[in-house]
Order: sequence, then C-alpha cells, then structure tokens
Amino acid sequence: MKDVAASADTRGITVERVGVKDVHLPIRVMRKAGGFDSVLARIDLGVELSHQFRGTHMSRFVDILFEWSRKPISKPEIRQMLEEACHRLEADSARVEVAFKYFITKSAPSSKSESSLDYDCRFEGVLDDGSYELTMGVEVPVTILCPCSKEISRCGAHNQRAIISVRIRCEPDSMVWIEDLVSMLERQGSAEVFPLLKREDEKFVTEAAYENPKFVEDVVRDVVSMLRDDQKVGWFQVSCESLESIHNHTVYAFHEESRETPPAGGGSRQAGPEIRS
Amino acid sequence: MKDVAASADTRGITVERVGVKDVHLPIRVMRKAGGFDSVLARIDLGVELSHQFRGTHMSRFVDILFEWSRKPISKPEIRQMLEEACHRLEADSARVEVAFKYFITKSAPSSKSESSLDYDCRFEGVLDDGSYELTMGVEVPVTILCPCSKEISRCGAHNQRAIISVRIRCEPDSMVWIEDLVSMLERQGSAEVFPLLKREDEKFVTEAAYENPKFVEDVVRDVVSMLRDDQKVGWFQVSCESLESIHNHTVYAFHEESRETPPAGGGSRQAGPEIRS
Amino acid sequence: MKDVAASADTRGITVERVGVKDVHLPIRVMRKAGGFDSVLARIDLGVELSHQFRGTHMSRFVDILFEWSRKPISKPEIRQMLEEACHRLEADSARVEVAFKYFITKSAPSSKSESSLDYDCRFEGVLDDGSYELTMGVEVPVTILCPCSKEISRCGAHNQRAIISVRIRCEPDSMVWIEDLVSMLERQGSAEVFPLLKREDEKFVTEAAYENPKFVEDVVRDVVSMLRDDQKVGWFQVSCESLESIHNHTVYAFHEESRETPPAGGGSRQAGPEIRS
Amino acid sequence: MKDVAASADTRGITVERVGVKDVHLPIRVMRKAGGFDSVLARIDLGVELSHQFRGTHMSRFVDILFEWSRKPISKPEIRQMLEEACHRLEADSARVEVAFKYFITKSAPSSKSESSLDYDCRFEGVLDDGSYELTMGVEVPVTILCPCSKEISRCGAHNQRAIISVRIRCEPDSMVWIEDLVSMLERQGSAEVFPLLKREDEKFVTEAAYENPKFVEDVVRDVVSMLRDDQKVGWFQVSCESLESIHNHTVYAFHEESRETPPAGGGSRQAGPEIRS
Repeated sequence: MKDVAASADTRGITVERVGVKDVHLPIRVMRKAGGFDSVLARIDLGVELSHQFRGTHMSRFVDILFEWSRKPISKPEIRQMLEEACHRLEADSARVEVAFKYFITKSAPSSKSESSLDYDCRFEGVLDDGSYELTMGVEVPVTILCPCSKEISRCGAHNQRAIISVRIRCEPDSMVWIEDLVSMLERQGSAEVFPLLKREDEKFVTEAAYENPKFVEDVVRDVVSMLRDDQKVGWFQVSCESLESIHNHTVYAFHEESRETPPAGGGSRQAGPEIRS
Repeated sequence: MKDVAASADTRGITVERVGVKDVHLPIRVMRKAGGFDSVLARIDLGVELSHQFRGTHMSRFVDILFEWSRKPISKPEIRQMLEEACHRLEADSARVEVAFKYFITKSAPSSKSESSLDYDCRFEGVLDDGSYELTMGVEVPVTILCPCSKEISRCGAHNQRAIISVRIRCEPDSMVWIEDLVSMLERQGSAEVFPLLKREDEKFVTEAAYENPKFVEDVVRDVVSMLRDDQKVGWFQVSCESLESIHNHTVYAFHEESRETPPAGGGSRQAGPEIRS
Repeated sequence: MKDVAASADTRGITVERVGVKDVHLPIRVMRKAGGFDSVLARIDLGVELSHQFRGTHMSRFVDILFEWSRKPISKPEIRQMLEEACHRLEADSARVEVAFKYFITKSAPSSKSESSLDYDCRFEGVLDDGSYELTMGVEVPVTILCPCSKEISRCGAHNQRAIISVRIRCEPDSMVWIEDLVSMLERQGSAEVFPLLKREDEKFVTEAAYENPKFVEDVVRDVVSMLRDDQKVGWFQVSCESLESIHNHTVYAFHEESRETPPAGGGSRQAGPEIRS
Repeated sequence: MKDVAASADTRGITVERVGVKDVHLPIRVMRKAGGFDSVLARIDLGVELSHQFRGTHMSRFVDILFEWSRKPISKPEIRQMLEEACHRLEADSARVEVAFKYFITKSAPSSKSESSLDYDCRFEGVLDDGSYELTMGVEVPVTILCPCSKEISRCGAHNQRAIISVRIRCEPDSMVWIEDLVSMLERQGSAEVFPLLKREDEKFVTEAAYENPKFVEDVVRDVVSMLRDDQKVGWFQVSCESLESIHNHTVYAFHEESRETPPAGGGSRQAGPEIRS
C-alpha cells in the first residue's frame, strides 16, 4: 500500500510544526506530595516536517499519546515523550501542549471546612536539536476589590472574581510544582476564593477583601516582584483579568520578563493577552 | 440530475425538524424608536420533514435567509419568513432561531456620559399548521450585592456581575420591544452596569448596590412579580446567574410560568437552565 | 450570626429551582464491565425554594457534591443524592445535571490497534415529590457521506464529521448503560470514527463510508427506529449535526418522541436543538 | 474626589500593558471597493503603565473606543487611535486588537447563485515610541481531501472542512486588503466552500476536491510559497487545521517566517497554534 505522506517533496519548505490537536485523553500528573492525579487533558503534539517529505504520519502521534497517557508525567517525562516523537517521526524538533484542570484541597479560613478548587493548568514542552524547555502555566481565581471605589464611596466597594494567569520557564535542572506556584499566587488578590464557605468564612473573606483593595495593576506588580525574587524562574508572563462587577467587559494588566534580558522600562511591548475565539 | 433528497422514503417517520444551523449573517432588527439596527446574527432555520420524502433541500434555507437578511424584521416579518419556508420546503411546520447582540445607549448615572451596552438577544419563531408563536429572549448584565455578606460583615459586602435571562411569549396580537424589556430588567439587580463610568458614577453605583442588596432568589422573584403584572406576557422563563466573586462557580435561580396554567406551588419542576457545552 | 437566607419572604413566590452551577469536580461513574471510571464533571445542582424562605443555603450544595464525588454513581445513587439535597435544603424537589467526557476503548477495523475515544455524556436527574426520573445523554461522533453528492458526481463524494446526540429516559426500574447506547449509535453513521487509524484502517473506513451514504435525515430516522424497538426506552430526543465540508455552517435533523403519546405525524413541534452561546 | 489610580507607585515596575478587554462594539471597516462595512467587533485596548503611577484610567479606553466606533478604520486610522490612547493615557506605547466577522459575496461555481460567506478577521496594532506595526489576521474555511485516502481506497476519499489561518505584517507604507488576502487563500484548499450551493454546484465542488487532494502540510507549503512571493509582506504566520471526518480530533500544520531573518531549515521552532480555552 503506497505511503503518500512519505513521498518526496520538491517545494523546498521545511514546515515548522505539523501534528494533532484537541486530542482529549485522561493522563496522570505527578503530585508534589508523591503519587499522581488522573486529569482530563486536551493535547497538541507536533514535530518539524523536513523539506524532504510531503507529509508526516499522523497516527504515530496518537500512538505516542496513548502510551504516555498511562505513565505519570512531570518535567523529565515530557522530555522523553518529545524525544520519542522526534525519533518515531524522524524530526529534529517536537512540541507538546497539555491543558488540564488540576484540583487542590483548600480549608475554609474560619470553619476549616475542606473542599477542592479547580485550576486551569498547562505544560508546553519544546525539544529543539536536543535543547529542551518547559513552560508551565496556571490560572488562579481570586477576589479583587477596587481601591478607587472604596476610597470615593460612602460605604462598600465593588469587587469581583479575577483570574491571575502565570506562565513560567525555569532555569535548566530546576522546576516549580503547580502546588507551590498556585499557593504563592492565591495570596496576591484582595482575598482567596473557595468552593465551600460557611457563614463565618464568608464574613472572613468579605472583610479581608475590604481591607486589602487591589487594582489589576497592583496584582500584576506584586506577582512580578514575587517572581523576580525566585531564582529558579528564568522567564515569566503574568496577567490579571477582572470580570468587573460594574461593567460588561474585562479589565486587565499584563507583563512579560526574562532574567537574561531585563526590561528597559518594562520589557518588550509587542505582546498582550490574545483574544480567544 | 437526480434529486436524491426528493426520492420516496419508506421508513414511515416524519422528522420533527431538519435544516441549517450556525449560519452567520448580518440582519436588520426593527428598533422601538423607528428604523432598524444592523446586527450580526447566528441563525437556525428548520422545517418538519414529511415521512414521504428522504430529505429536505438545504440550499433553499440559505436562500431564504439571504433574502430576509436585507429586510428589517420584527414579530410579523418572522411569521412571513416561516410561511415562506413552509411553502418552499413543502412543510406544515417551520422554526427559526435568531441570536444576536443588540446595543442600547445608556447615560452614566451622575456624569450622564453616553455609551452603548451590548445585550444578548434571541428570537425563536414557530409556525405550526398556521399557528404562530414568537419567543423573545434577552440577557441583561447587572451588579448584585450579597445581603448575607453585608449583614454579617463589619464592612463591605461581596458583589459581582450577574446575568438576568428572560424568555417571554406574548398573547396573540401583542408584542414587547427589546428596549422595554431590557429597561425593566436593568432595575431588578442591586445596581445597573455601564460601559463608561467616570469617578462620580463609580461612587454612585457602588453606593447604590450597597444600599440595595439582593440574592439571585430576590432578583428572580422580583422579575416574576413584574412579568405577572404585564398582561401582554402569556408565558415566561427567568433566570439569574451570578459569577460569584468569592467562588469559582456560579449560583442561580430559575423560574418558568404560564398565565393559562398557574403554578401549584411554583410551576413545573422539570426544567432548569441547561449546561452549555 | 444572623441567617439572612432563612428569613421569611412575603412575596408568595415559590421559585422552581435555585442552586449552584458550573461546579467542576472529578467524580466516579460506574462502568458496565464493573468498577468505575474517574471523570471530570461539570455539575449543576438545585432545589425548589419554598415561598416561605428568602433564600437557600448555597454552601450545602457544594458540601453534598464533595461527599458524592468520592462514591461511584449510577441511576440509583443519583436518586440518593437528590434525596439528600431535598432533606438538607428542606425542599420538595431537586434536580442535578452532570456533564462529562467518557472514554471507551475501540479497536481499529483492520489493524485492530486499540485507542480510546471521548464521548460527551450527561446525566440529568429530577426528584419531584418522591417521583424520580433520570435522563441520560450521549454525543457520538461519526462520519457521514452525502448521498446526493455521490449520486451526481463523476467521482468522490463530500463527507464530514457529524455528531449524533441522543437523550433518553427509561421506564421505571430499567436503565441503559452508556457503553451500550454508544455502541448502538456508532453504527448509525456512514462509518465510525477512531482516534488511531493505520493505513489499512483508513482504506477500510473510506470505502465503508462511500458504500453507505447517509443524510442527517437518514441517521435520525434510523436512530428513531432503533429506539422505538427498545422497550426499555420511554422517551427520547435525537439529533444529528453535520459539520459540512462544503459549507461554513451546520446542517441538522432533530426528533423527539414519547412512548406514551406517540406522534401524530412527527411529535411535538415546539422544540429544536437550541443554539448554544 | 481623590484619584487613587493617579497616586504615586514605589514598586519601580513599569507594566507592559494595562487596559480593557472583551469590549463588544459595532465598528466600521473600510472595504477595498470603497465605503465601509459595519461589523460587530470584540476589542482589547491597552497601554504601557509607567512605574510612576499606581493605575491607569480605564474609562478613557472606553471613551476612545466609542468615538472611534463611528469612523471607518483601516491601517492609518488604527495608528491615529493608538496615538490618541498614548496621549490621553500619558503612555509611550499602546496596543489594540479588533476581532470581527467580515462578509464577502461569493458566486457559486456553476449556477452563479450569490451568497455571503463569513470570515473571522483581526487587526492587531502596536505603537511603540512612535514606531507603528499592524498585524492582520484572516481565517478562511476550505474543503481539503486526503491524498492518502484517495490513493489507497478503491473509491471515494475522506474530506472535511479545514481552516486556513494567516497573520501578516506588511512592509512600512504598504498594506493588503482583507478581500485580496481571502481571495488568494481560498484557492489553496482542495476546493472552496460556499453558503449556497445548488445541485450543479455541489457536483462541481465534489469533483474539484477529488481532483485536487491536499494534506494540511500541502496547504501550508503552498500558502508559504504564495506569501514569500508577495513583496509587500514582511512577516507571516500560517496554519491549516483540519476537522478530520474520520477522527474526533484535529490535524494541523503551522509555519512562521520573516523576510529579514529567513529560516535556517524552517524558521523559529518555538511557537505553535496555541490551544484556546
């Protein structure tokens, strides 16, 4: 049976990335405390396609993903998965993106009632001519309370849910656990959010938020300071998006920075949190 | 060229609805003040398929929609569109659903600065053996402030954006304008939302919300009272969904009622606001 | 600490449903083969709110969900969860909706390579004055190939992914497993879809689809016949939506039927597959 | 009334971007043929926030957008909007992203029936210390037919809707019209898609696709060749994503290239089409 994908190509164009996308699969993510969690992942796996070949072999990507879906993964295992992809697809470069909801148990501030909160997380691994880089992303919901509204109003202050999104790359041979990054970020809003709050807890978070007003700009600056202090982190992006209670739109702040090339007055200015379809 | 769709079918099954869906098209919606607005619509148009025929003629639906996209529509025009669909598709029953964002100019409460707020609206028309019924839906964003949080806390109170969704069917020969329904609903939250608020306006809405705390249950009950009082409205559904600032989930209240068959202790209990994919 | 929600209400309106929505939580679903699968669920849980009370107690819903998230569920356990909700919230009626991706292992038709396909599933349970009803929903992706395109074209025929969505309610004391319903539906398209297809499998499904052309109308009629023959099924809805390869919109067929009130020429004509936001 | 946002900040961090997001607004886009089209836009507008100030003034962004929503825009007008944002927000850098559906009339290939197809488009403008850059994005749906499936199968071949997404930046003082870019891209699939196809048109596109099989890799390479030949284009990204009819996932190819720094064997390998939430 003819292998059309393997036939020669004469256009002379090496394509940066070809592969599969939006593959849904349960996978296993290693926990800081040991063991692993089963999570539902949405996966994108691709390789570079050499100018010599007309196409890649799409079924091999699916094959690799099914095999890896049974083994707990963390930074080194994602590298192994990419090495296997390069080997089986005869490519010099591979990239994987794994997006999933991760659950962490929280105790309510006053009643200590336990519940599990969901965080949107993401691993993006790239292997390029033997050089490996992992980007980890987490989204942490918090409450923020507007300092301006509090200052100018006779009573109360508008507040709302906001999402702190952080993507980081660590220095070689170091890594940060999702649990630790989430824990640091939860303290950066006006108050934490919880699935389960009894009345005494609701009183606690209401008052905590009122006493700690923050703009999205404040949140991003405080996260930037925190990440600059963490020597393991070599590059980061941070945004805070606020689902304004007084508007029907979002307000945001965004910042990106690399340890190697510190910003002249605030870092590169090209990027921004892309509008999603 | 053979017409496969028109060939005879022997399974003896009349299919309730066949047609096109997720057709995106600019259409014209009549305004209360006269004239019309161009809006971007997502449309679903279908007819009953008689047991005699194997299939319908999908291209005719698109043809009908393109023609009607140039004419301003309101309750009677939607009936005409459905009559045309029944006629051209040889069907006894037709249904159309038109979802769009509608913009209404608002003045900020203190500065009177003008801006336009977007409301998700929807017309659902059904023509069935000559009997016509139009359901109109609107979604109105408001601020709600938690009465419990205000009562138990030393200062402040959690608040957030909430969406009041209403679907109504009017008595025959009567109709309600989107503008009027939106205007009535905007007064049912703790405070209105606006795209543009200067500082004096922000003070106004913050204090207004603090002085008017409401649960989602309060909002729904107040809307129910309002709609029961409107003799033009023969049936309605109302929900209020709150994007809790202290949680990562939503809380809601929902109610449905018909003038003809008033509820025994609260109306039919089957339905609920369906989870969307 | 005052319980504002428990305070008396004088508006005289019993609200049909109040509760929490879009709660994300890992839960356990019983498998036909025994044991259970951990799945990621999106959950909506609500109760009727009596006219006597101002509000419900939202934290109790979350409490109930966390407890039940550790126990494998199926038709009888969902009833128990609703009984607990009625008891703890002092309500006569409760409703839960649980949406999740479920994975079933499939063997490729020729190579027999194994892989797991994801199906969107949903349980909707209602307990109303002691009367319990469970609706089960599954969405099954298939390939469909257009009979008209095949008939009129010199070669080839357009084909595309289509989604067969079915919701069923069983007669009291009977139930249908997700695995069995999926398995019946997968045979109703022009060909099945698989995550992993080697070249000999791709040849198989291409030829199978070409030899078995079907309109969305055909798919729905064949599913209707199948469900009418299943005595356990008392009520059903079925739709087939096709992501047309030659258009940028969808075409669909939809049908609903109850064993008790068989359709006069096609069943009730009100409903249709609602446009989702 | 105190201006909290304007108060001094001592953290010494210039934030790359702060502003508003997901503002929905009807705007006017200039057409190639003259005049303009009213489209429904989703907009993100932000500026750099100097380390001196605690916050920006969010209401001014909304003010700017409302004013500009009445004037037809194209490349030079977007620069003026960004200059105004820098001026009114006292910033050195501003960025706007405008996403909208754009409609272009198409004639069916055989019957010449006219209809309007919707294309997802996007302008991203950045003004940075006086230097202006506009990135234009378009998404064009096409049919692609699998060369492998055609080659190995006795009859037929699987085909599906695919989306060609292109983002380009032009050399200074030059621009490309949406209409021209769309027109070039529509010819790069196996066949074009249309909203309205009569039977003779369906025959035409079915046969056209069968005679012009293409992998996503082929589509991307052909678009790369086309864009390399266009001297106005200084940088581009191109992807093709195929909604596989035989799978429940997507396959894709992606490539990025700049005229200034041509690829050594295929360009930078970092990027990829990001998974969207």
